[in-house]
Amino acid sequence: MNLIQDTLNRDRRAIARLISHIENGEPDAREALAVLYPHTGRAYIVGVTGAPGTGKSTLVNELAKAYRRLDQPRTVGIIAVDPTSPFSGGAILGDRIRMRDLAGDAGIFVRSMATRGSLGGLARATADAIKVLDAAGYEVIFVETVGAGQAEVDIAKTAYTTIVVEAPGLGDEIQALKAGIMEIADIFVVNKADREGADSTVAAIRMMLDLNHASHVEGQGWRPPVCKTIAVRGDGVPALVEEIEAHSAFLRESGLLGQRERERVTTEFEYLLHEQLMRQFVSRVSPEQWDELIERIVRREVDPYTAAEKLLREMT
Amino acid sequence: MNLIQDTLNRDRRAIARLISHIENGEPDAREALAVLYPHTGRAYIVGVTGAPGTGKSTLVNELAKAYRRLDQPRTVGIIAVDPTSPFSGGAILGDRIRMRDLAGDAGIFVRSMATRGSLGGLARATADAIKVLDAAGYEVIFVETVGAGQAEVDIAKTAYTTIVVEAPGLGDEIQALKAGIMEIADIFVVNKADREGADSTVAAIRMMLDLNHASHVEGQGWRPPVCKTIAVRGDGVPALVEEIEAHSAFLRESGLLGQRERERVTTEFEYLLHEQLMRQFVSRVSPEQWDELIERIVRREVDPYTAAEKLLREMT
Repeated sequence: MNLIQDTLNRDRRAIARLISHIENGEPDAREALAVLYPHTGRAYIVGVTGAPGTGKSTLVNELAKAYRRLDQPRTVGIIAVDPTSPFSGGAILGDRIRMRDLAGDAGIFVRSMATRGSLGGLARATADAIKVLDAAGYEVIFVETVGAGQAEVDIAKTAYTTIVVEAPGLGDEIQALKAGIMEIADIFVVNKADREGADSTVAAIRMMLDLNHASHVEGQGWRPPVCKTIAVRGDGVPALVEEIEAHSAFLRESGLLGQRERERVTTEFEYLLHEQLMRQFVSRVSPEQWDELIERIVRREVDPYTAAEKLLREMT
Repeated sequence: MNLIQDTLNRDRRAIARLISHIENGEPDAREALAVLYPHTGRAYIVGVTGAPGTGKSTLVNELAKAYRRLDQPRTVGIIAVDPTSPFSGGAILGDRIRMRDLAGDAGIFVRSMATRGSLGGLARATADAIKVLDAAGYEVIFVETVGAGQAEVDIAKTAYTTIVVEAPGLGDEIQALKAGIMEIADIFVVNKADREGADSTVAAIRMMLDLNHASHVEGQGWRPPVCKTIAVRGDGVPALVEEIEAHSAFLRESGLLGQRERERVTTEFEYLLHEQLMRQFVSRVSPEQWDELIERIVRREVDPYTAAEKLLREMT
């Protein structure tokens, strides 16, 4: 099995294995990503975030099916990221259940990713998994995250279009407001729209948008639409696809697509620099020197700020 | 007003202002922290984490009161961290409501902190706020976080004793299990213990502890107790204080206290090094060089990994 060539040929087992290698930080993954990189940049990346219970996963499945049913069907990749779970076992089970729902369509690939270590590590592994699906020729890639604050703000940065999913009756507060993810929403969806309170949830989002008017929306020339869906029945999903396509066209025509791509690349590049710079630096400090410094901070002989500055002056 | 001297004299306005300066990243905050640092290391830091709805804040308030009522009363600092909220307005209102509950006791100081920017930034601002309260002479410092994954794992690392709060009937899953914060719990609390299902929540936690037996608990010689409380009535709170004190004594006697302190210092020091190293490095790259590199990655002429390595080789 040639991981790189087979991935480019959209071999599902090769893709799955390569993403596992990325998650585990295996050295061949890095090399593969460098070779695959020139083949990326063609996929359209859509972020979907929302609190547990909003029916986000069902919605993403239905969106995938809708893209497959277009006059010109598009291949779809789904990456489901759970920053609150360090367990991958459940994720794998979840993948199987979802795949069954998607009825073995070879044009759809589903993958879950969970935290192993830091959020930064997860965001980066997700970015790399997107590259793999992109290089493999999946045309639309959905990145689905649980709404829990900074994590999806970071992950949403990798998407061109970000959808924030709400549902009526989940609590007295709108999730987007609480998590401060309002600013990242290009499209709002009120799912489970047959439930009581759907209209007032829509109204609350519209009010928020009005309040936020001057700051963000105005400047960019795009007012986030608020769509109602009943994902379990597929209701409203074709209209949502149209909104995604409208936003995509807006980004292309306004030149904002290139800007978002540049921001994404910058964020990723800074992260990589960070990591490699730190590794390089630490390798030049002897373990004895390091321990001695930590001990001095513990004994309050020097404060951590001054110690960091001093070490940097000495070593660079 | 002399921020440093007044903080050491436990002047509440000076403390509040200094923490605001830390949050805003003002330059005098760094200097003040360096001067205050030798005065730190005396406080006992207790982390309290749990999902929304567990009654965590009420529990922390009652713990504070219980510490004030001991035969030898201890002064108490409370830092309430909400990694899911970027808003400080609500936080300040929350502070006022809490302070009223705490009846203006000069021996208790309450402060809320919210995300402004990255989780890393919040964890660091929290660590610095702890130093301020420590230097000001608060003897027990509670750091309260909303249970939402990696964020409180990071913040919990600053505590000597970490309490995980659950409540019956919040959902079919135990929060600690979901968020993977089981490993960080030194004490479990089932709050709202008068509710139906309290005993089965206790049983579920005990079962989890049994399953996890060999891995963590055994090695350290401490089995996390499971306490029942009804915080709104203060029930079970004195017993919880005893457990905190027992864990504190265990850490001291086993030598683990020093180890936790060292780990905490190491984490903080690495973070500071990271930040300063990156700042120093980026200042040596010209804006033109930087833009050119980003453009080349965007055009897929070079992948970000190779670009980062190359830049590091050239610059160091």
